[in-house]
Amino acid sequence: MTDFWNEHPELSNDLAEVRRVMAEIARRDDFPASDAVSDLVAGGGKLLRPAFLLLASRFGKPKRPDITRLAAAIELLHTATLIHDDVIDGALTRRGVPTVHARHGETVAVLSGDLLLARCFRLASESASPANARLLARLVEDICVAEVRQDFGAYDFSIGRREYLRRVAGKTALLFSLAFHAGASESKVTPRTAERLRRAGWDIGMAFQIIDDVLDFEGCEETVRKPLGRDLAEGVCTLPLIVARSTRGAELDALLAKPPYAEETVRRAVDLVRDSGAVEAARTEAARYTERALKEIDRLPPNSARAELRAVAGKLLLRAC
Amino acid sequence: MTDFWNEHPELSNDLAEVRRVMAEIARRDDFPASDAVSDLVAGGGKLLRPAFLLLASRFGKPKRPDITRLAAAIELLHTATLIHDDVIDGALTRRGVPTVHARHGETVAVLSGDLLLARCFRLASESASPANARLLARLVEDICVAEVRQDFGAYDFSIGRREYLRRVAGKTALLFSLAFHAGASESKVTPRTAERLRRAGWDIGMAFQIIDDVLDFEGCEETVRKPLGRDLAEGVCTLPLIVARSTRGAELDALLAKPPYAEETVRRAVDLVRDSGAVEAARTEAARYTERALKEIDRLPPNSARAELRAVAGKLLLRAC
Repeated sequence: MTDFWNEHPELSNDLAEVRRVMAEIARRDDFPASDAVSDLVAGGGKLLRPAFLLLASRFGKPKRPDITRLAAAIELLHTATLIHDDVIDGALTRRGVPTVHARHGETVAVLSGDLLLARCFRLASESASPANARLLARLVEDICVAEVRQDFGAYDFSIGRREYLRRVAGKTALLFSLAFHAGASESKVTPRTAERLRRAGWDIGMAFQIIDDVLDFEGCEETVRKPLGRDLAEGVCTLPLIVARSTRGAELDALLAKPPYAEETVRRAVDLVRDSGAVEAARTEAARYTERALKEIDRLPPNSARAELRAVAGKLLLRAC
Repeated sequence: MTDFWNEHPELSNDLAEVRRVMAEIARRDDFPASDAVSDLVAGGGKLLRPAFLLLASRFGKPKRPDITRLAAAIELLHTATLIHDDVIDGALTRRGVPTVHARHGETVAVLSGDLLLARCFRLASESASPANARLLARLVEDICVAEVRQDFGAYDFSIGRREYLRRVAGKTALLFSLAFHAGASESKVTPRTAERLRRAGWDIGMAFQIIDDVLDFEGCEETVRKPLGRDLAEGVCTLPLIVARSTRGAELDALLAKPPYAEETVRRAVDLVRDSGAVEAARTEAARYTERALKEIDRLPPNSARAELRAVAGKLLLRAC
């Protein structure tokens, strides 16, 4: 489960249950690639999205086991998008295990992602209100749109902050915000609290993704578990680069004019961005979202869930190398 | 729309409306590949699945525009699977237009399929009962399982009739049967009639797919719009081959021992299967399903929908070169 939840025994227990449900759902005896999908689920990350959903639900009266199943659905949705991302990127490993794509080929990977998507919709329609099931479907659409916009804009480093933030919203903030919203509304939280939770989720998602993008420029490779400058090498334009271009545009544009880039080119571009002070500026932007999220959290009804939420958000958004 | 519906003006009108809804749904202004998806939708085939859904609904009291939207959702689901199939097969054209994959690359094709899947679930959750929305999700799972089983079994020509029929069920009969069931149950058809319609749909789907598989051995290439023996070349084992192996096993196995096959090898295998009488045997199997379907249809309440359904099923299942 990683050590991330060590200080949160209750949440940690609930997440173990989410993981059990996920494993049960990922397995289908008549599905020949069940093993690869199960391994991916078992090797899973921090389960942030289900954790936020469960925390939000504690502001009301969570109904079990429905809320656990919905939390599992949200994470499976995330897993489905990862499987398809790996097909797209041709990635060979994920979370330390070979990708479905590497193990069973493209056909199986495309279909495994579809299968999980469908399962997740089924689960949602069984364990959530029709309104939330619809929101989930809508969300998947928005994620796809955001990813396609990013793909169409690959190697276009001239996009502005606004388009960048729009993609971040689609890629990450929407799903975080939905996790908060679904947890709250399924547990009959008051509308005002539900709205605060939804907003906090949005801001946490924005901050989380911006920090993730910053780490691509300054993380220790060990922590980030991927080489520095990978986004840039793949033509994905993120905030540090956007900021750096405002002062070092000519140099950066000359360097990045002709993809694919040699390793040395990527390294030099990463150095240029770091030297420009853009990484700090991007961190400041992330901090703005973090502060807004914490402010929303402080306005929530004071209870153990709020204290825990504050601690988790703080820990998550202050991560550095 | 193709001439298929010429003799059914009412259905033809309804399908034009389905097509309009589909076009509206396929288009999303912020989705850069909207054009390619729309073209695929516009170039669409016979719209068999929505047609059956609408015909089934006429045994009760169809509620518009919900039933039209649900019919569109069923076809979009089919379209989503086609887009992903084209990624998997690396196909360059579909229905005479370049595939999404050929036009915009793999990333966009994978994500476009996901987007349509999600839209289809959203549409279903808006315009169908929760039970039918769940069935639709379940169905997508089953389709994926069937396809993956087929992929895992590629170039294994030793499968039996039973495994073959299981795959046909997952690939085709389930979706046909769901179209009938959804149309009926959303229109408050009596349980007995709904069950008859569901069974008729299943048998029509089975017959339809078996005939499709037969046409891969005997169709004029012009009618089938693909070269003969394509399934076989791709390692997909279908009924004519299974039957032929019972008498010409040694020859066929020797011929097909080492994929990929030269064109000449495929042609010789196709000839062997045809000479063995297996094509007729497979047609007889399809006829068994067709007869069962027509028998179910004849037991339905006598009305204009029944007459039309009988005519459509007959025409569809008697197609030959």
